[in-house]
Amino acid sequence: VHERPVEDLIDEFQRLPGVGRKTAERYVFLLLSADETDVRRFAEAMLHMKERIGFCSRCHNIAEGELCRVCANPQRDAGVICVVETPRDVASLERTQQFRGLYHVLGGALSPIDGITPERLTIASLVDRVRSEDVREVILCTNQTVDGDATASYLARELAAVAEAGTDGPTITRIASGLPVGSDLDFADDATLTRALAGRRSI
Amino acid sequence: VHERPVEDLIDEFQRLPGVGRKTAERYVFLLLSADETDVRRFAEAMLHMKERIGFCSRCHNIAEGELCRVCANPQRDAGVICVVETPRDVASLERTQQFRGLYHVLGGALSPIDGITPERLTIASLVDRVRSEDVREVILCTNQTVDGDATASYLARELAAVAEAGTDGPTITRIASGLPVGSDLDFADDATLTRALAGRRSI
Repeated sequence: VHERPVEDLIDEFQRLPGVGRKTAERYVFLLLSADETDVRRFAEAMLHMKERIGFCSRCHNIAEGELCRVCANPQRDAGVICVVETPRDVASLERTQQFRGLYHVLGGALSPIDGITPERLTIASLVDRVRSEDVREVILCTNQTVDGDATASYLARELAAVAEAGTDGPTITRIASGLPVGSDLDFADDATLTRALAGRRSI
Repeated sequence: VHERPVEDLIDEFQRLPGVGRKTAERYVFLLLSADETDVRRFAEAMLHMKERIGFCSRCHNIAEGELCRVCANPQRDAGVICVVETPRDVASLERTQQFRGLYHVLGGALSPIDGITPERLTIASLVDRVRSEDVREVILCTNQTVDGDATASYLARELAAVAEAGTDGPTITRIASGLPVGSDLDFADDATLTRALAGRRSI
């Protein structure tokens, strides 16, 4: 419908998550009326980010350089590894400022239907770390979803096998599931309520 | 929170309409895991569009070159000008394939509160066109909003003044307001119903 260069950019924006044609059009028309310097800065920020940011060779989190900020920080406790699905999960956990250990980013969750087999994730690299580093605890922080739970179960088995082979393996834990803080009981879904009950603690 | 190049790109995405920090983060993390060639193509599409696309010297619609596609088409009826607020409105009207005249893109609607005075819009250029071109009809297609209506009223007065000064001026019309096709009466708001009633036609 539009001129070729406009259509091309609309196509590119449509590749972003949750962006349909209408939204992509709105974005492109804003850029059309924006200053040329602003659009150039945007495009260069994109190229610059892609050039500068890669993945941490140790934990697969996003990194500027060889190691990510967390792995490069000597203050962090290398004895505890928190396993998450994506770099965004690392950012969420870091925001709480409660966790002082290191991370391991899987790059997703196991999902046989979508062809996400263990080889597609950084599981071998996690097993290597548990084998070679001095790890006391592995916290499985994959999502509280069918895929996330299945991945946690799979990892628990794999890591237990590593422990048997060596001397004494790390403790394997799973992040707690339950009612969100500030939520009403009658708004909780059955699955959350069931898990929250099962995970009850003495006070 | 993130590395500088990541934060910079999040900032850029947040300038897009309706994009908050969370959405911008999702976009950036998708690009982080995308192929470098894909990201490069995206950035280049942005630069390319900005280089190639400008505004039509006659109607201010987006244009690749001096004139937009509509103005450059000799088949179009130069005797009818449809006045719209934005180039997106041109695209919407073109999609109907019902209008065979030319357009005039104002670049917005009058809005004293936002500092959008007549000088900020392409009104002088519209008056010039009506004066110098052989225009039979001007259809005011600004939005059915307070600002769009005020702009239409303002233009109607301005163009009537042009007509008085010259010989015989063009007919000035306003696009119809009423109930959308396929809509239920009981879902229509009062303002729409009022206008739809006022604009009733004999059948």
